[in-house]
Amino acid sequence: MKTSPNIEAVRKLCERWAWLSEKEFAELLAQNCIYYDVPFPRAQAVGPKAAYAKLSPLQRDWDIGLEVTSIVGDADTVIAERVEHFRNKSNAVEPFDLPVVGVFEIADGKIKAWRDYWDKSAAEPLLRFIAISSGQRTPNQATGDKR
Amino acid sequence: MKTSPNIEAVRKLCERWAWLSEKEFAELLAQNCIYYDVPFPRAQAVGPKAAYAKLSPLQRDWDIGLEVTSIVGDADTVIAERVEHFRNKSNAVEPFDLPVVGVFEIADGKIKAWRDYWDKSAAEPLLRFIAISSGQRTPNQATGDKR
Repeated sequence: MKTSPNIEAVRKLCERWAWLSEKEFAELLAQNCIYYDVPFPRAQAVGPKAAYAKLSPLQRDWDIGLEVTSIVGDADTVIAERVEHFRNKSNAVEPFDLPVVGVFEIADGKIKAWRDYWDKSAAEPLLRFIAISSGQRTPNQATGDKR
Repeated sequence: MKTSPNIEAVRKLCERWAWLSEKEFAELLAQNCIYYDVPFPRAQAVGPKAAYAKLSPLQRDWDIGLEVTSIVGDADTVIAERVEHFRNKSNAVEPFDLPVVGVFEIADGKIKAWRDYWDKSAAEPLLRFIAISSGQRTPNQATGDKR
């Protein structure tokens, strides 16, 4: 696999999104970056702060392993194939592995679009956990998006 | 977007899989190429003949439009983001658009692995049509894979 600054930025995001700080999100994502899970196109997070707010709470309830299996790109686009490993910390639902491909559009060294492709049925334990716990948490966790 | 012989081979496959001849599949895919839809990992087609047999029957029942929206690659890997437009010729189910990302591993100028990432629920009309018609067709169309 070849590498490049774009590829390294995307690799960092893909391998570490669960633990990155809000500042690190702002270093990687453009202020108007549009991020969404393709199965839930209406649940878009716009900007690094919203992406951070969507992703970072996940590590509260889950042990997460993030693995990039293929990554290629050019000056404008990087695409990364990944496997994300999820284990619920309280064993409320069963562990699962989620195959994902992320498409990242890049301009001026920052990610301006991020689209994650995955199969909802493969993330069923996570979606079920969100449904179970949505009564105990904030209402916007019941929207059905994975993060 | 940069191009290359690998990218052009994958683009041809992504833009024309519904109409390619078995000979054209053999020009693009290695004899031991493993092709599968990630939501159905057990329904693998191995080799160009099996890929042709899996894909080409689809255009009997469907008007299909194939569109590549992003494509990047290097010497070993090409990844293509696509939208596939499906309209059932008999209007038995509603038309739908399927967002897909395909990951293609390439060696010696031939595709040796092809993994398509998509959300089963986005292809629900196609899966329903396969279920409806499986009684009238060959039994292996009832396996639940999209093609």
